[in-house]
Amino acid sequence: MAKEKKLVKNITSREEDFAQWYTDVVREAQLCDYSSVKGCLNYLPNGYAIWELIQADLDRRFKETGVENVYLPELIPENLLQKEKDHIEGFAPEVAWVTHGGMEKLQERFCIRPTSETLFCDLWSRTVQSYRDLPKVWNQWCSVLRWEKTTRPFLRSREFLWQEGHTIHATYEEAEERTKMMAQIYRDFYKETLAMPFVSGRKAENEKFAGAQDTYTVEALMHDGKALQAATSHFFGSGFPDAFDIKYIDKDNQLKSVYETSWGLSTRSIGGLIMVHGDDDGLVLPPRVAPVECRIIPIAQHKEGVLDAAYTLFEELKKAGYRVKIDDSDKSPGWKFSEQEILGIPTRIEIGPKDIENHQVVVVRRDTREKMVVSIDEIVQKLKGILETIQKDMYDRAEEFLQAHIDTAVDMDEMVEKFKENRGFVKACWCGDPDCEAEVKAVTGGASTRCLIEDEEMISDECIWCKKPAKHMAYWGKSY
Amino acid sequence: MAKEKKLVKNITSREEDFAQWYTDVVREAQLCDYSSVKGCLNYLPNGYAIWELIQADLDRRFKETGVENVYLPELIPENLLQKEKDHIEGFAPEVAWVTHGGMEKLQERFCIRPTSETLFCDLWSRTVQSYRDLPKVWNQWCSVLRWEKTTRPFLRSREFLWQEGHTIHATYEEAEERTKMMAQIYRDFYKETLAMPFVSGRKAENEKFAGAQDTYTVEALMHDGKALQAATSHFFGSGFPDAFDIKYIDKDNQLKSVYETSWGLSTRSIGGLIMVHGDDDGLVLPPRVAPVECRIIPIAQHKEGVLDAAYTLFEELKKAGYRVKIDDSDKSPGWKFSEQEILGIPTRIEIGPKDIENHQVVVVRRDTREKMVVSIDEIVQKLKGILETIQKDMYDRAEEFLQAHIDTAVDMDEMVEKFKENRGFVKACWCGDPDCEAEVKAVTGGASTRCLIEDEEMISDECIWCKKPAKHMAYWGKSY
Repeated sequence: MAKEKKLVKNITSREEDFAQWYTDVVREAQLCDYSSVKGCLNYLPNGYAIWELIQADLDRRFKETGVENVYLPELIPENLLQKEKDHIEGFAPEVAWVTHGGMEKLQERFCIRPTSETLFCDLWSRTVQSYRDLPKVWNQWCSVLRWEKTTRPFLRSREFLWQEGHTIHATYEEAEERTKMMAQIYRDFYKETLAMPFVSGRKAENEKFAGAQDTYTVEALMHDGKALQAATSHFFGSGFPDAFDIKYIDKDNQLKSVYETSWGLSTRSIGGLIMVHGDDDGLVLPPRVAPVECRIIPIAQHKEGVLDAAYTLFEELKKAGYRVKIDDSDKSPGWKFSEQEILGIPTRIEIGPKDIENHQVVVVRRDTREKMVVSIDEIVQKLKGILETIQKDMYDRAEEFLQAHIDTAVDMDEMVEKFKENRGFVKACWCGDPDCEAEVKAVTGGASTRCLIEDEEMISDECIWCKKPAKHMAYWGKSY
Repeated sequence: MAKEKKLVKNITSREEDFAQWYTDVVREAQLCDYSSVKGCLNYLPNGYAIWELIQADLDRRFKETGVENVYLPELIPENLLQKEKDHIEGFAPEVAWVTHGGMEKLQERFCIRPTSETLFCDLWSRTVQSYRDLPKVWNQWCSVLRWEKTTRPFLRSREFLWQEGHTIHATYEEAEERTKMMAQIYRDFYKETLAMPFVSGRKAENEKFAGAQDTYTVEALMHDGKALQAATSHFFGSGFPDAFDIKYIDKDNQLKSVYETSWGLSTRSIGGLIMVHGDDDGLVLPPRVAPVECRIIPIAQHKEGVLDAAYTLFEELKKAGYRVKIDDSDKSPGWKFSEQEILGIPTRIEIGPKDIENHQVVVVRRDTREKMVVSIDEIVQKLKGILETIQKDMYDRAEEFLQAHIDTAVDMDEMVEKFKENRGFVKACWCGDPDCEAEVKAVTGGASTRCLIEDEEMISDECIWCKKPAKHMAYWGKSY
């Protein structure tokens, strides 16, 4: 019993200390841990299996729109990184440098890729010649490295896993369309697969990616009221590819510029998942990215017939295509329940002597704790519906939470008030001057523009800070 | 017409210059190319898609035996690499060193992983305490980097993609069994999926992995008679984990050592695939790893009804689950045939006005060029069988080639004679002394032991070089 108490007690409550709760959940659910390499993570089986489901889902969405996967080197020669001015300024302070190969000092340093625009452009500058070579719509799944000072599991680490898509197109319009298409894929993915609602739109000038002309972002709201930048899609115009001298001969025999995009989603999404859905008992996973959708827990398993019935059910569920496990260890049922809850497994099925007698099982939902008695003849068929309901309910609850945490402000008093308790997003108008944003950020204790709102009527004509004419309305929020 | 000739001419014949043929096929099929990072590859869509199919197949086989995927950092602190003496000696000369992070010089250097035994052991030394924590059966798909001097696409490059499995077990027997189990998985994979035959067995002492007690290898024979080490599975005993102080408390309350294995297969396998199956017209892919199983080529596509019929067929094949493409470009059919052949697509379907009139299509096999007339009503169902036949025939032909290139030798005259023309594998006996092997290697122009033969009667009692008592019989071969 002492051990069981310990298991539950190891998670701080969210209200008490959200940051500590997060750390506790990541540790207790064994998703990842820090390695001996400062600031770098070991992605453990429970965490990596979530990433594999995310990859499979997103990769399918990409390929349906014609994306092809590739893999480019993890090293970038220093001279390549320097070709685009904004880009090098943005990344130089945070890359790791390789200076020696084997026993020799290298003539030119390489950095470990913090992102790969430069390598893709370098490749295309050598291989793209004609309009027949366009478009290129490529993606790679890989790790990148940024020498961050402060790190947190999944949210910010030196090395992290992601996908980075890179494309070039013959026209401005086609590239812009691709930028928006990928932003839409990210929105669909967050809504349908991670059950995470969001606000989304273009980034303000000062929040854009280094070298980009436009950045579209998906911003999700965490349980503590902070925003998480969850995916971004960038439009580069022709500035970046021009710096690499990528030109093509068009049908009219003219030499022309290409237009570029890039877009990425990382293991940060797992951090978001935890902070949107988790509760004081641990992780709560949406079924579509749950490595195990259902865990069978035999009750009084020493009694005759219990384990047999449990194994039979296990085989039937497995055969039907469910991701199912059985916990037939010698731990107590209470301990097993507690573990299943910590791991966020969407459902458990309890089966004991009484259930067998009544030809039934008990299904317990992780998200609501609702218990359902289901006939043993129907469970294989019904579990699908239960998982779908959980997926839908989880989104709806999170969407309700998001909507309840979007506010408006037309002056700074209101703004400060709304942000006093980490309230979420606040809509407010702005002249577009980064200095004004910096002032707002200082006064509110960290709120900045998360994205611009372009499809709604502005709630004010004035910048919330300087009172000069407003250029934008934006979602403001404190962010991870 | 000039262009069509060029396309075909760009591939040197195998008999004329095998190395050049290989380079030509890799380039013309657009599998990969060298990047601006010396010795590192760009894996292009055609090449990477093969790797994705290899990954999916192998990953499924792994998971069926309980393997869990993880991801550990790409950087290894220098002190960790040094914990196991043989290991550091084996790898130190060929790693890349990171010495600066951001603007700062690091206190301790990191190498980019050449392999990850050290990181897995480091993690387990902190997390494994009890017999309940065992076994760990983990794998990661990642890239590794070895600062090679001479490189060739897929076969040897500084950075390459692979999977590395790492496991620890409570007993010697269990670890040994896992080592052999994974070697068996590689054998099954090569036979069933890549249609590549091989010889296999334990490596001789001097050919083992740095730090391993036993290495099991799969050695495939290329068309030029050279062997390719195609996958390896290593048994470390407890030496390696002891160096990292991984101990566990067993049920009897005693502190005990664990036993370790590791096993890997890399993008080298794609190089093997090319050199076993390719011909003078380009790549020939076994259907199971062909990103496109069938390409539809409309004939006289300007004529009424042809493109419609081709699109209808395309949709039907796609719906039935085939990986199918259609080439409706404005190139000539001859040009399209040539491209399909270069790319190694296992089948093409030709459909023209006459075919439509006769309610048929023409299926052409890439491997044999055999043409088959198939009713348009039956093609969706019959293509499956055609692809299976190709897969089987490709293996059978390669197996026949392998068997025709295994010889025996009991003295050096015979040995030299057999290796004069890059004949393949030669069975010969050996005292086990690395010096004798070195002498044989020098005299034969490069033949070394590829693996030991332990389940056959020895063909001689004497070492082929020194005539002292033979300890082993081995397959000898020149290798990539």
